[in-house]
Amino acid sequence: MRSARVDRLAMDAPDDVSAIAALFASGEVAPEQVIAILGKTEGNGCVNDFTRGFATQSLRLLLGAHLAPERVDAVSMVMSGGTEGGLSPHWLVLSETQAPESSAEAPAASGPSLAFASVATRPLSPSEIGRPAQAALVRDGVYAAMAKAAIAAEDDVHFVQIKCPLLTSDRIAAVAGDVATQETLKSMGLSRAASALGVAEALGEAPPATQAQIGTDWTLWSSRASASAGVELMCCEIVVMGMSSAWTGPLAIAHAVMRDAIDAPAVQQLLQTIAPEVPPQEASTRVEGVLVKAEASPEGTIRGLRHTMLQDSDLASTRHARALVGGVLAGVIGRTDLFVSGGAEHQGPPGGGPVA
Amino acid sequence: MRSARVDRLAMDAPDDVSAIAALFASGEVAPEQVIAILGKTEGNGCVNDFTRGFATQSLRLLLGAHLAPERVDAVSMVMSGGTEGGLSPHWLVLSETQAPESSAEAPAASGPSLAFASVATRPLSPSEIGRPAQAALVRDGVYAAMAKAAIAAEDDVHFVQIKCPLLTSDRIAAVAGDVATQETLKSMGLSRAASALGVAEALGEAPPATQAQIGTDWTLWSSRASASAGVELMCCEIVVMGMSSAWTGPLAIAHAVMRDAIDAPAVQQLLQTIAPEVPPQEASTRVEGVLVKAEASPEGTIRGLRHTMLQDSDLASTRHARALVGGVLAGVIGRTDLFVSGGAEHQGPPGGGPVA
Amino acid sequence: MRSARVDRLAMDAPDDVSAIAALFASGEVAPEQVIAILGKTEGNGCVNDFTRGFATQSLRLLLGAHLAPERVDAVSMVMSGGTEGGLSPHWLVLSETQAPESSAEAPAASGPSLAFASVATRPLSPSEIGRPAQAALVRDGVYAAMAKAAIAAEDDVHFVQIKCPLLTSDRIAAVAGDVATQETLKSMGLSRAASALGVAEALGEAPPATQAQIGTDWTLWSSRASASAGVELMCCEIVVMGMSSAWTGPLAIAHAVMRDAIDAPAVQQLLQTIAPEVPPQEASTRVEGVLVKAEASPEGTIRGLRHTMLQDSDLASTRHARALVGGVLAGVIGRTDLFVSGGAEHQGPPGGGPVA
Amino acid sequence: MRSARVDRLAMDAPDDVSAIAALFASGEVAPEQVIAILGKTEGNGCVNDFTRGFATQSLRLLLGAHLAPERVDAVSMVMSGGTEGGLSPHWLVLSETQAPESSAEAPAASGPSLAFASVATRPLSPSEIGRPAQAALVRDGVYAAMAKAAIAAEDDVHFVQIKCPLLTSDRIAAVAGDVATQETLKSMGLSRAASALGVAEALGEAPPATQAQIGTDWTLWSSRASASAGVELMCCEIVVMGMSSAWTGPLAIAHAVMRDAIDAPAVQQLLQTIAPEVPPQEASTRVEGVLVKAEASPEGTIRGLRHTMLQDSDLASTRHARALVGGVLAGVIGRTDLFVSGGAEHQGPPGGGPVA
Repeated sequence: MRSARVDRLAMDAPDDVSAIAALFASGEVAPEQVIAILGKTEGNGCVNDFTRGFATQSLRLLLGAHLAPERVDAVSMVMSGGTEGGLSPHWLVLSETQAPESSAEAPAASGPSLAFASVATRPLSPSEIGRPAQAALVRDGVYAAMAKAAIAAEDDVHFVQIKCPLLTSDRIAAVAGDVATQETLKSMGLSRAASALGVAEALGEAPPATQAQIGTDWTLWSSRASASAGVELMCCEIVVMGMSSAWTGPLAIAHAVMRDAIDAPAVQQLLQTIAPEVPPQEASTRVEGVLVKAEASPEGTIRGLRHTMLQDSDLASTRHARALVGGVLAGVIGRTDLFVSGGAEHQGPPGGGPVA
Repeated sequence: MRSARVDRLAMDAPDDVSAIAALFASGEVAPEQVIAILGKTEGNGCVNDFTRGFATQSLRLLLGAHLAPERVDAVSMVMSGGTEGGLSPHWLVLSETQAPESSAEAPAASGPSLAFASVATRPLSPSEIGRPAQAALVRDGVYAAMAKAAIAAEDDVHFVQIKCPLLTSDRIAAVAGDVATQETLKSMGLSRAASALGVAEALGEAPPATQAQIGTDWTLWSSRASASAGVELMCCEIVVMGMSSAWTGPLAIAHAVMRDAIDAPAVQQLLQTIAPEVPPQEASTRVEGVLVKAEASPEGTIRGLRHTMLQDSDLASTRHARALVGGVLAGVIGRTDLFVSGGAEHQGPPGGGPVA
Repeated sequence: MRSARVDRLAMDAPDDVSAIAALFASGEVAPEQVIAILGKTEGNGCVNDFTRGFATQSLRLLLGAHLAPERVDAVSMVMSGGTEGGLSPHWLVLSETQAPESSAEAPAASGPSLAFASVATRPLSPSEIGRPAQAALVRDGVYAAMAKAAIAAEDDVHFVQIKCPLLTSDRIAAVAGDVATQETLKSMGLSRAASALGVAEALGEAPPATQAQIGTDWTLWSSRASASAGVELMCCEIVVMGMSSAWTGPLAIAHAVMRDAIDAPAVQQLLQTIAPEVPPQEASTRVEGVLVKAEASPEGTIRGLRHTMLQDSDLASTRHARALVGGVLAGVIGRTDLFVSGGAEHQGPPGGGPVA
Repeated sequence: MRSARVDRLAMDAPDDVSAIAALFASGEVAPEQVIAILGKTEGNGCVNDFTRGFATQSLRLLLGAHLAPERVDAVSMVMSGGTEGGLSPHWLVLSETQAPESSAEAPAASGPSLAFASVATRPLSPSEIGRPAQAALVRDGVYAAMAKAAIAAEDDVHFVQIKCPLLTSDRIAAVAGDVATQETLKSMGLSRAASALGVAEALGEAPPATQAQIGTDWTLWSSRASASAGVELMCCEIVVMGMSSAWTGPLAIAHAVMRDAIDAPAVQQLLQTIAPEVPPQEASTRVEGVLVKAEASPEGTIRGLRHTMLQDSDLASTRHARALVGGVLAGVIGRTDLFVSGGAEHQGPPGGGPVA
């Protein structure tokens, strides 16, 4: 039977892949078993964050030493920049292994287990970024990845991580300005927004998005989408994670929605639900990975109190938001290598976000 | 009997004193009852943060409309810049009122209550900033403020907030370079350090500091000091808060030490200790004010995981640290108007800090 | 006869008005003679730049000690934040004095001289900011100021400095979202744009602007407009400067247009034209004040070479642009107390700007 | 005879080596002819600037496709981060070609021509960074590179570009804290300082530096050193450029010293001296490359006027300084692809810097 493995590994710099190299050298994970690698890198997470591209180039060099080029291309690499506050740069390596045959001594685990798969859409035209065409491509990609992962139902999907492209001056010029926005920073938000609405549609959380709704109608959102935009790709890379009876092993995944940026109880409850036998102070040793989205609440307040994230011209609001949500979660879970990704347009309610 | 009152009021901008003006207009607090005003303002909290001075000037204008100039000078105004993450700019107005005579219907409360008083040291010479002379001045100031507040013992002191000066190019030149450091940003840290060690000495937590220890020997620290440096003053303003039997009323204060930046359990325990009858989810409605210090752990890690606060040349580590600790506390307490002050040299253990 | 005086004075901090106080104390300028005070302050020049408000409050306190409140209100105070690169914070005090009667020894100067006057429009509704209504108000204000300054013809106007309001979350909410943009930083640009097009219309440089043109159609621009947006006012303050035969004295004003951000020759030529007898190396001692607008060229290049101002999420493009243009001008003129103001929408050609 | 070639090529991102690939593909330059590649990349130029490492890795990948690994190692790659203001990211590829035999139609050029060579020192221990040991290594490296380039005399050297290492938390820990400074950002300055004093010693401009002088005694400086620190190497890479009779061709190099950051006349004079027949407005078409150092004047003023570079906690002074000097030079030369490198400790007089 298929079995999921997750390795969370420290990173000393965006090009430090030594921990992954050591994992391969140890023989515990073979390069060909890797499905996806998520990286939380230490750039600003905005337009000119080259730590994502640097990390990706470094991963490709490492994998290229083991795998054929087309197999390297098949590994989904989702880099998310920004380790504000106390967040710790790290890799999450998702691998698919083969569970040993069950025997009298080691009977097959019963019940479903963590399952995942990744797909990449075709490259987008700059004109499609942040528009319904992108949402439709992502929707179809979610279905394709579910099939690949043998996740049977929409409700069994607990997280969809999407890496999507953004606009640059060159790309805008390449389509003669026929784009959703002329502003490069804004294009990151619209691209994330379109991706999230594609997930929402796939999972039955929202109807197909119209142009006017993308990045505007915050009543539409997915409880399981997490999108992150980067300059280094033109397609959308989609990693679907969920529970499947076709997989076995000790790992499980669940999700919750933080209703605002400081909703620690939602996370405490999630831990309680998924593993009621683990006392809170042991969470840090039992949680294999945390994926969460963060954003500044667009109305400028948190529980009625003004925040300054949207007025700060020195520091992008996404940087503020990652620091804040990283702090809230680190307080609950007791560790800082959390995959907190900024910009949660249509990913959870306004000011809140999904956590898995 | 003396009685303490704390008003936590929102601020729309550093010069927005309208909520305090309204408090005076309501008759609930008279301007002459005000002992100290703490302000969390939305600047960068570093050298060129003029929001502190702007807030102070605005407060002085407001108070000057009600009080004689020397009485305005007697009000301690401690502005702390930086509302990173989700922190909300706000004022904490500390007033001393007179408790009504006890009667059959309203018997006098038994036991000690919150008490506070403020003093200002003489102006420092730029040569004294960050040196033992500053620590000694602060130590004497703590004793003077305890006497003023009728706080009987060192153990009854739960928080000492100090506002202290920093060096600028002009000030360094004025003493011909005879200063603890030539670097203005670094002088903020040394000034906070000397202040904290003065408190530690006063409260019996550490011996008198030598020059070599200030800003260096992190084994010396106070569990109750909070120092904040600003360009707008040359003296040290000291507000001592504690419990006193000479005061009455419903308010109490207690303190704890966060051993690192994500030590949420220390805060949960403190809430439990001071008010065991209040369920956690009601903390946000019962806590009248939160005072806490934050800093990036100097060794570059939190519980063994690397943070990037000290390597980030775009964003000062104090800004990262306030965002992080603000998130941890907001998750526990459920609100964001927390007085999180950056730069915790000798204020709690390295990477941690006192909370009251 | 009327006579113009310009005092350029250093500022040690946004609230340092000591040099102006000294000017008054010296008797050389009386407070009632002050028409306008421009201040280049050391904030970030963006939404959360409180140095402008702090400087204005400090100026009002100083003037209020000499003048009646309504007379203080009549002094135009135009603060522009941002001293990136080597720019030096300074005040430009514009006063109207009375020229001494001409005599045999001191005959009246012949020909026109520097003249100026200021007006303020009525407060704008947040809904008017960045829209044609603002442009129309500014246009009428320019005519009113020309009349006040006895500047006879549009061609005699050489600079129009406008301070205009921006949108904040509160202001957007106050008009239920009926605004030109929901984004506060963007509102600064639209407000400057509408102001500039109002000047362009007044001076016959462009037809009345339509909504669609404001902030979009860069073929429309004024060669003499300089607009700066700030949170501290809701009206537009307009200072018109030009040449008038009704004024006398040694000062003159002229303007040129930098066709791009590095167009030093335009400035060299302007100096040559206005004072052909002054050798270049003496410019720094003869120029009494320099007013200029700067912006990142919207197409992302300067003379065909890519710049990174619009991709830098750590540093606003207006900050880059002020530093750049400040460097170009400091190289030509030999001093750094230049009033370089960022954001040159419709103020000079795209990427360039007017200089006076 | 040996002949120098310089190609200045645009870069769309730190990993965009396409223009160099095209140069190789064109056959005009062979990969084995490349001596050094300088890159001006668009990071912040400070501790966490990964654009330098990303560019270097990308260059190595490109060269590695053409050359053996040890030959790739022999190419000096000097990346300098920071394109503030209007600076344009670009590569400077220095190659050594063979001049064609002279003939009747094309007689050998007479007189000396541009010559260059590069060497790398051994790796430094973290304990050596910013100390006399580093200066001595650089001094010896300069002599070695002069010999390699056949530059006969110290006076024929016009620029020495050094890339040197910096301290990180890990490196400090590796030598148990026996380092010149505990502060990573400060270590960049000390490393540049030690390198520059090594050049000054080699060129007879200053005696061997003592520990106390490095980063302190600004009366010691080289008129031809340019040092840049980066996290991606532990040795010092040294490129010496000068004039040599052993080389032929149309290129020449000369240097001048800007006495402060706005010393445009020094650059105008240099252009005039090296090519008196070229009118100023043609400089942009005749200058093949500009190398210059920039820094904030340590006393806080430029020609007596205060600058704010050293008080700005949002923006490192090196970023301000590059923007400023880039503006000054772009005004003179008329283009923005200038190799302006920040941090000019002992490289030119305080606040000024060498330009070649």
